Amino acid sequence: MAPMTTLKGEKFDRTLFESVLKRRFFFTESFEIYRLSPNFKGDNRGLFDYGPPGCALQANIVDAWRKHFVLEENMLEVDCTVITPELVLKTSGHVDKFADWMCKDPVKGEYLRADHLVESVLESRLARGLNGPSKDSPKLDEANIAEYNDILAKIDNYDGPELAELIRRFDIRNPDGNGEVLPPIPFNLMFKSTIGPSAAAPVYLRPETAQGQFLNFRKLLEYNQGAMPFASASIGKSYRNEISPRSGLLRVREFLMAEIEHYVDPTQKKHERFFEVLAIELPLLDRETQLAGKTTPRTITVEQAVKSKTVGNETLGYFLARVLLFLLKLGVDPGKVRFRQHLANEMAHYATDCWDAELLTSYGWIECVGCADRSAYDLTVHSKYTGTPLVVKQALHEPVKVEEWQATLDKKLVGPRFKRNAKTIQASVDALDQSSLETLAAQLREKGSVVINTPALSDGKTSVELSSELLKIEKTTRLQTIREYTPNVIEPSFGIGRILYSLLEQVYWHRPNDTARAVLSLPLGVAPTKVLIVPLSSQPQFAPIVRRLSVRLRNLGISNNVDSSSASIGKRYARNDEIGTPLGITIDFDTVKDGSLTLRERDTTAQVRALEDDIVGAVKALVDGAEAWEQVCQRLPAFTGRDQDD
Amino acid sequence: MAPMTTLKGEKFDRTLFESVLKRRFFFTESFEIYRLSPNFKGDNRGLFDYGPPGCALQANIVDAWRKHFVLEENMLEVDCTVITPELVLKTSGHVDKFADWMCKDPVKGEYLRADHLVESVLESRLARGLNGPSKDSPKLDEANIAEYNDILAKIDNYDGPELAELIRRFDIRNPDGNGEVLPPIPFNLMFKSTIGPSAAAPVYLRPETAQGQFLNFRKLLEYNQGAMPFASASIGKSYRNEISPRSGLLRVREFLMAEIEHYVDPTQKKHERFFEVLAIELPLLDRETQLAGKTTPRTITVEQAVKSKTVGNETLGYFLARVLLFLLKLGVDPGKVRFRQHLANEMAHYATDCWDAELLTSYGWIECVGCADRSAYDLTVHSKYTGTPLVVKQALHEPVKVEEWQATLDKKLVGPRFKRNAKTIQASVDALDQSSLETLAAQLREKGSVVINTPALSDGKTSVELSSELLKIEKTTRLQTIREYTPNVIEPSFGIGRILYSLLEQVYWHRPNDTARAVLSLPLGVAPTKVLIVPLSSQPQFAPIVRRLSVRLRNLGISNNVDSSSASIGKRYARNDEIGTPLGITIDFDTVKDGSLTLRERDTTAQVRALEDDIVGAVKALVDGAEAWEQVCQRLPAFTGRDQDD
Repeated sequence: MAPMTTLKGEKFDRTLFESVLKRRFFFTESFEIYRLSPNFKGDNRGLFDYGPPGCALQANIVDAWRKHFVLEENMLEVDCTVITPELVLKTSGHVDKFADWMCKDPVKGEYLRADHLVESVLESRLARGLNGPSKDSPKLDEANIAEYNDILAKIDNYDGPELAELIRRFDIRNPDGNGEVLPPIPFNLMFKSTIGPSAAAPVYLRPETAQGQFLNFRKLLEYNQGAMPFASASIGKSYRNEISPRSGLLRVREFLMAEIEHYVDPTQKKHERFFEVLAIELPLLDRETQLAGKTTPRTITVEQAVKSKTVGNETLGYFLARVLLFLLKLGVDPGKVRFRQHLANEMAHYATDCWDAELLTSYGWIECVGCADRSAYDLTVHSKYTGTPLVVKQALHEPVKVEEWQATLDKKLVGPRFKRNAKTIQASVDALDQSSLETLAAQLREKGSVVINTPALSDGKTSVELSSELLKIEKTTRLQTIREYTPNVIEPSFGIGRILYSLLEQVYWHRPNDTARAVLSLPLGVAPTKVLIVPLSSQPQFAPIVRRLSVRLRNLGISNNVDSSSASIGKRYARNDEIGTPLGITIDFDTVKDGSLTLRERDTTAQVRALEDDIVGAVKALVDGAEAWEQVCQRLPAFTGRDQDD
Repeated sequence: MAPMTTLKGEKFDRTLFESVLKRRFFFTESFEIYRLSPNFKGDNRGLFDYGPPGCALQANIVDAWRKHFVLEENMLEVDCTVITPELVLKTSGHVDKFADWMCKDPVKGEYLRADHLVESVLESRLARGLNGPSKDSPKLDEANIAEYNDILAKIDNYDGPELAELIRRFDIRNPDGNGEVLPPIPFNLMFKSTIGPSAAAPVYLRPETAQGQFLNFRKLLEYNQGAMPFASASIGKSYRNEISPRSGLLRVREFLMAEIEHYVDPTQKKHERFFEVLAIELPLLDRETQLAGKTTPRTITVEQAVKSKTVGNETLGYFLARVLLFLLKLGVDPGKVRFRQHLANEMAHYATDCWDAELLTSYGWIECVGCADRSAYDLTVHSKYTGTPLVVKQALHEPVKVEEWQATLDKKLVGPRFKRNAKTIQASVDALDQSSLETLAAQLREKGSVVINTPALSDGKTSVELSSELLKIEKTTRLQTIREYTPNVIEPSFGIGRILYSLLEQVYWHRPNDTARAVLSLPLGVAPTKVLIVPLSSQPQFAPIVRRLSVRLRNLGISNNVDSSSASIGKRYARNDEIGTPLGITIDFDTVKDGSLTLRERDTTAQVRALEDDIVGAVKALVDGAEAWEQVCQRLPAFTGRDQDD
């Protein structure tokens, strides 16, 4: 992998970068003052607090998301609870399958995520050129290197037993102490609790916002007056009890998600606005390319991607394009984003296909948005369990003839014969699907009777034999005027914290030859504060000008900070370059005389000077995207009187 | 209590009101399709999902809050984790004290909140006029009635043993089955879980956002460049495992909070913007009035309230006024809001004073905003536990002479005498406060030695005797140039869900003589959707006009919905009156000819007609608050051609 470079092409220095984020309180480890206490026990990594600039940046990303997706596409936004009863997540498959494989180091008492362990050990061996845990290990030969690289390219594709085999075969040990580890076991990633004083039923913190949306499908469809396709959306915290979280904001146990569930007719995954995105170029890394051990994406248009079946359908293609546009709007570097298709074993249990939008960071390519085709999985399992139909009823223009198997019990005979079991048997017969009915019809013809599974009957049996006297199964034809179907779900799912962190890495650079003067080139749309107001002096005649300007900008909806500290103008600008404030307005002694102000742009440090109305007008035009900085520079006179950036 | 009336003075009908909220999917019980399943066990009440209009209303309230408080007052917004280690909440007092008293009904296996039990039983006896649980109970006499009312007025003031005594004395039983209940025991209201694979240390879901803010105090003060006073703020979910939640959105287990922690100099609780709110009139119900058994607030100005010491200080007074302004901005009825002071036993363990902003609903007066003076409680306990100073250092203009007791150990003697215990003893001496030092100095003078408590020493003892040879305690004088103090915290804390629900009750009414046609008179600022666009026909020439208008409004940041259904115009407007959409634009056959549109106002159903530019301009002016509807009606011609509201 090529090393991460900054916007200006220099090598990215994570230590310098992190010191900026820490200094400007973008975020911090939660409970930091407790972590330093000797009485603080247990594992509390993977939890972070956002300070003021991080919190404002997060709010602006969420706001941009809501505008780009929810408002632009009239999605139905909902807000569902985090606390979720076990039964819901049992049905969705999360209680049984939402797990990672972990190994225990019995000596250290440490738990390690199995795939991360294999990955880090093999990577470190490749780096050292040695084929084993100790210094005396034989050197890696070309065949070893090829094998290691092949495993690393597929690392997300191994299940538990396969990871166990790799650990055994390559003698992989805990890098911390070199101890052998026990074979991997699954660890469920959900936080568990109980609710109410009786604590009778377990609950979990949701691992995704999706389930709440699915459970409300019927109400949402009704709210949408029955019209299809449509999307619901939700922004909220989700929780994953990661085994051993490292790498800062990129792997956390509590995180903000924004998820869209787009419901489509499974026979008709077209999208009516697909034409708008046809020509957008997507950098795609598909499954086949990865399994061939390659990591270079190819860039093709959305139209080509869908036509060539690289991307499964129009709706998925439409969303990949919309996701890309969103990321670019936030300020993501177009050269540092790609879409990677999930490998078969890597996919969540509910997905039939998945493409991740990945952003390049100093930690490598990071999954920030998952675009999964969840098919009809979730709606089907919840509907089946609860008995609530989660389907769309479509009036057919032309009624169609439908042939189907139909089972009829002779009520007059069944009632007296089975007494209080009759109802249960009727329900079991009604629940038989078409393919079962076809099989049973043949049996009934051949043997004259069939055995039907039932819930426990009064005699304790869980099946019943029915003769052809009692049960008829016949092929019938009927005219269908309503088509009923379970929609498929296309789900773009955004990890806001990962996007935020990756974006910060990508917009970070420093002034030429001065690593101490960092800049975050965040676009105006998402920058925590839009405008810095800097009075040159603390003399009393400056105060009313500062206050008026600040209120005026605020009334235009433009966030601004006043820095009246005694630091030099240059220092005050430098401080705000580090939180990515795009514009600065200086109030100096000439302002007091003639009302003129200077306006400075963060990235170029260029300045213009004009009267307050013109400056405020320019700021408004820049914030609204009506003008670019270059246009403002052509319109308003440059200010070169004094270099304020020293 | 007077019954709740609607905006139009009619009796409020909760059944009708709830059917509107349900029909329009403002919110719903979470996991509703599971609740109906026979396998669904356990107690999952008190959890609600917001549908599209509820979610949009909530987002608009949050947005208004952020503008009114965070942006307007330059507060430092942070976003801290919900998951909190036990140690933090042990220190804050929540593990030991954040509990409600509950009684078990051993027959039913039910748990009841003790104060709610007493309250509901006494209220029901007052209503029935009977003094006991059974129908044969004696009638209530005047003394009984007075006593019951007195207890009810102070119901929030009783602790566990007092509630036990009331239950015994008045033979209070579970209304469901009339069974006797066991004496009240405390139930901690926090949800508990564990983190990480080892599950070694318990964690809780935070019961308030405040603790995360306090733990970051040092970083926040630094971010604010050391300047005082300042405020941090946070918006996020909090959790309370309520014993037996009822009354819908008003008592829930997962809820959105918005909290402000305003840090002030304890000797100087003035507020620099106090002058802006002097004349605002507050309806106050103070502690004395309540203990006298009265419930009518008196309305006085903020200035009077602070001057008369009814409200403790300027900062608290300032926030009460700002809270009132905020609630009125949301559309709260000025006649249905009051500020009630907490009774002594009712206050949270951390508060020294507290005023609740209460809104009148059909459930009575509901606490929606708590304004507490938390003094230095939280910062002190966290600082003490972690050893991290959470203080403000203030440079003094004039150095001041400070007299203080100082303890000095003779290191040359103490080291050899106490060996490895010497350090512990030194630390114990250093930790002595001024009043302990004064007492010890006297003892040392009298007896020639003192006993100092210590952590466990190597000989197992937890104290040590020190002679005056080893320890000197003397009064010294020094010049202080820096004053160090722990700030006090004034905390306005908002329950967003309670505000949202109470507001909906207060803005609900129905068209004269037509209970089926409900209206929610939400102001433009918070209404879920600002504009409804209604094409009169589905003919193809309407579509481009609809689309252009919708995009144009959206580009102005004005949310809008298109209703192209085949329902009548009147029905479509009625549907949107029920979600509180303030404005409607109709596109009819004249629009296709001459480009004119009609604009309808929800509350009056009055309409004006003008060209698209004028209509869009009027909408923008209304949304921005630059014009009132009456002004628009004077400017633009009324449309009376056809009554579209039928």
